[in-house]
Amino acid sequence: MTKSVQIYDTTLRDGTQAENFNLSVTDKVRISHKLDDLGIDFIEGGWPGSNPLAVDFFKTMQGQTLKHAKLAAFGSTRLFSNPCEKDKNLQALIDAKTPVITIFGKSWDIHVHDALRIELEDNLRIIEESLAYLKPHAENLFYDAEHFFDGFKKNQDYALATLEKAILGGAECLVLCDTNGGMLPHEVKAIIECVQTFIAGHGDHITLGIHAHNDSETAVANSLLALSLGVKQVQGTMNGYGERCGNANLTSIIPALGLKMGYTAESLKNLDKLYDTAMFVDELANLPHNKYQPYVGRSAFAHKGGIHVSAVKRNPLTYEHVEPEKVGNFRRILISDQAGKSNILHKAKKFGIELDPKSPIAASIVSELKELENQGFQYEGAEASFELLMRRAVGTHATYFTLKGFRAINSKRKMGRPPETEATIRLEVGGHEVHTASMGDGPVNALDKAMRKALTRFYPALEEIELVDYKVRVLTGQHGTGAKVRVLVESKDQYEQWGTVGVSVNIIEASWQALVDSINYKLMRDDQRHAKSS
Amino acid sequence: MTKSVQIYDTTLRDGTQAENFNLSVTDKVRISHKLDDLGIDFIEGGWPGSNPLAVDFFKTMQGQTLKHAKLAAFGSTRLFSNPCEKDKNLQALIDAKTPVITIFGKSWDIHVHDALRIELEDNLRIIEESLAYLKPHAENLFYDAEHFFDGFKKNQDYALATLEKAILGGAECLVLCDTNGGMLPHEVKAIIECVQTFIAGHGDHITLGIHAHNDSETAVANSLLALSLGVKQVQGTMNGYGERCGNANLTSIIPALGLKMGYTAESLKNLDKLYDTAMFVDELANLPHNKYQPYVGRSAFAHKGGIHVSAVKRNPLTYEHVEPEKVGNFRRILISDQAGKSNILHKAKKFGIELDPKSPIAASIVSELKELENQGFQYEGAEASFELLMRRAVGTHATYFTLKGFRAINSKRKMGRPPETEATIRLEVGGHEVHTASMGDGPVNALDKAMRKALTRFYPALEEIELVDYKVRVLTGQHGTGAKVRVLVESKDQYEQWGTVGVSVNIIEASWQALVDSINYKLMRDDQRHAKSS
Repeated sequence: MTKSVQIYDTTLRDGTQAENFNLSVTDKVRISHKLDDLGIDFIEGGWPGSNPLAVDFFKTMQGQTLKHAKLAAFGSTRLFSNPCEKDKNLQALIDAKTPVITIFGKSWDIHVHDALRIELEDNLRIIEESLAYLKPHAENLFYDAEHFFDGFKKNQDYALATLEKAILGGAECLVLCDTNGGMLPHEVKAIIECVQTFIAGHGDHITLGIHAHNDSETAVANSLLALSLGVKQVQGTMNGYGERCGNANLTSIIPALGLKMGYTAESLKNLDKLYDTAMFVDELANLPHNKYQPYVGRSAFAHKGGIHVSAVKRNPLTYEHVEPEKVGNFRRILISDQAGKSNILHKAKKFGIELDPKSPIAASIVSELKELENQGFQYEGAEASFELLMRRAVGTHATYFTLKGFRAINSKRKMGRPPETEATIRLEVGGHEVHTASMGDGPVNALDKAMRKALTRFYPALEEIELVDYKVRVLTGQHGTGAKVRVLVESKDQYEQWGTVGVSVNIIEASWQALVDSINYKLMRDDQRHAKSS
Repeated sequence: MTKSVQIYDTTLRDGTQAENFNLSVTDKVRISHKLDDLGIDFIEGGWPGSNPLAVDFFKTMQGQTLKHAKLAAFGSTRLFSNPCEKDKNLQALIDAKTPVITIFGKSWDIHVHDALRIELEDNLRIIEESLAYLKPHAENLFYDAEHFFDGFKKNQDYALATLEKAILGGAECLVLCDTNGGMLPHEVKAIIECVQTFIAGHGDHITLGIHAHNDSETAVANSLLALSLGVKQVQGTMNGYGERCGNANLTSIIPALGLKMGYTAESLKNLDKLYDTAMFVDELANLPHNKYQPYVGRSAFAHKGGIHVSAVKRNPLTYEHVEPEKVGNFRRILISDQAGKSNILHKAKKFGIELDPKSPIAASIVSELKELENQGFQYEGAEASFELLMRRAVGTHATYFTLKGFRAINSKRKMGRPPETEATIRLEVGGHEVHTASMGDGPVNALDKAMRKALTRFYPALEEIELVDYKVRVLTGQHGTGAKVRVLVESKDQYEQWGTVGVSVNIIEASWQALVDSINYKLMRDDQRHAKSS
């Protein structure tokens, strides 16, 4: 018999409570589609009652279609002083027009007194009334029992009474939250078994969920234990982002459910997209990838010890708990030169480029890419740069223009006034030398404008390029303003969207590299489209 | 009744299997004393039979005294082809002259065949004989049953037979290893209960230990579960460093044992040294601190959401699972876009700035901060900039220099060669005008150098500033290279570390703002220190 589970992602809401984790509305929309591709069942998009960004996000999403995932809006029970129909928070949930609504209420008596400052009875009333009021507006109505485990330990009867009210109000899933993240696995087990006995009398339609925080480093274990006891919904975030030490990490929970525990869910069919999805979230949040992260970390299948390396080559099972390819990751042998080639062939295949493993070209790409990665290049978010590199190596590239030189000048004359920026550029295009200049908002913007000005005369299609995103990452390991930077540029036209990369100690040089790759990619793809259609 | 537990640290051995985690002999000696200060019971220093650094380390340690900790040397069972007295690995263990010897043997039948390439019976023989041979040389003799859980799942009888041989050989603690880190908590529980039944017949002097890896993100939970079942020794590393995804994290296990599970051990008396110890290990390994780490992370007790902030101030228990001071950490209220007056007053108090909640100055800081946040400033990682802002508002700031102008010029003359960068700067310092210039690795680096060159003559203490980190974030919501950027600069001197921020469409302008704040902060703090001491 297969066991089903609901995967509920709250990266866009609880995840953004993490220090330094901030997402724009555009980021949130892009992440939603990425999570939908992965097959996540529910995507919690934000708290419209407390955050104007969330309102914008839900409005934007009303015009878009998700393949599988259902969007959830999050909010609190109504204020005690308001009737439901006048409560701004509940109205904002309805206005979000999502198929799913999730509200949280207080389970712990001290929170009712200290935070809400109302009587215990009154809290029970607003839980039931808020849910009942929202019921006709939601396909699925979930109840997050905040601080449930702490509340249960201090006042078991009251915590259970809040759940009873949530059932009466119409919640179909009661999500038990370890809000402070303090629970240890053996406690979680005992409490869940108690709750299961309690709700058994309320009919089969009521299910339980788990929402764990990682302050004890046990959020993944607590969630898996809960599921193994029969809990049906698990809430968490990509890469475990969340307030303080984070939420339960879905990138560790999902593969355990699929590869080890025999569950079924849409996302468990797409486990090989997990690595990409995890990287994508780091990239958009502009946070460094945690290489030691289970399953999706760059070190997760990296072998360093000599004994391990030879054993793993004979039989991967000896030192790998799962096959890295199953989660879209790959094995790395850290101290051996033989590592490179299979890694690069793996990447080439992933990007759809045919490459004979035995050709000298493959070997030269291996060594070029190794050198570039040592310099700090990374192609996860820059597939267009990778394709250009491959095509240069196999000799199927065209040269559209050659740089002769550029200058970028910043002049600041007064405190309180921004500097003035001017860029000049000299290019050779098809035998013609072009020398032109532009002002800009900053040195990179000025250079970008000057380059387009120089080239559009020869390649009018370049006007179709829109720069969607520009990201800068300082590479760690070097100190201060002399450190290397990696620039990622995301561009699009009417056909597609593509990413390019540049690396240098000089941010203008790194930006230049990424911009040049973006232009070359556009011209190459236009040529390919033209060749196909003619 | 109090429950005792043995804490066994293997940072210096298994920890160094982590990617990028490398320690010199001196580092290892310093970390040993730091772990001893914390009260760790056993410190595994290395594998002298496979690593010459470990031999040096044990030789160095023979001349030194530890207060509480016992040093352990680690190695494998003998080669089948060697008698014990001729086995180099066993001899190296004896030569290390440590009070504790730990050896590992194979528990999983496929490893006996695939890695050792010997018969199952022969493996049993070398386990017993190796231990028996080492017994007279060690105060404590421990046996690490490598891959025990995987082995048990595939061939239970054989895995148990290896343990029996270890007991016959004289091991006092049988450490069950989840070498691949694949075990989930519910499996660990079932297997340990089985092993306990099996060894019950062998006398009370035999204890069990647990050595877990974190590939499933459940190493801490698995270890705590094992201890809650009666296992007596826990092995792990500081900050969880270790091969692939790391070992069980002792900085999460130790406080759980002391603060939540009622155990006794020397290190549980010194919990308030935990944060310092964790930071010390990161510092010596030269690895970035993981701020989201439980208990000892800089975000572990950081509160961002407005609701949480006001609740935590009334009653810390509401959003903190333990008191941060108990583990040497501290609470932080993040200055985020949700910041209201109460956050600002809280900060002012921390900076030692007198601020009347009802004064117009407090209100003007709130509105200035709101305006700056709208522009993209964020003070989460830039408390020094925030303090300067407050002091300017209350009028207790000093002006150390005034900018008259700067230029930053990038010239690129050839493809494949990085651009040349030059910055010029004009400042007024105490009535003098200074006009100077510098080359640099990029425009920001050149400007930084020129500014220090101009100022160090007047403020020699500026030479003490080291730029630790420089981060750039492109603010979303605007497209492409014309978007705003936020620059965060992290600086330090011999006294402290501080963060500053700048925002502009021009990256050079944003960097300039953050650098100027950093310099002003340093000069202000030097003045304060000087005033105090005189």
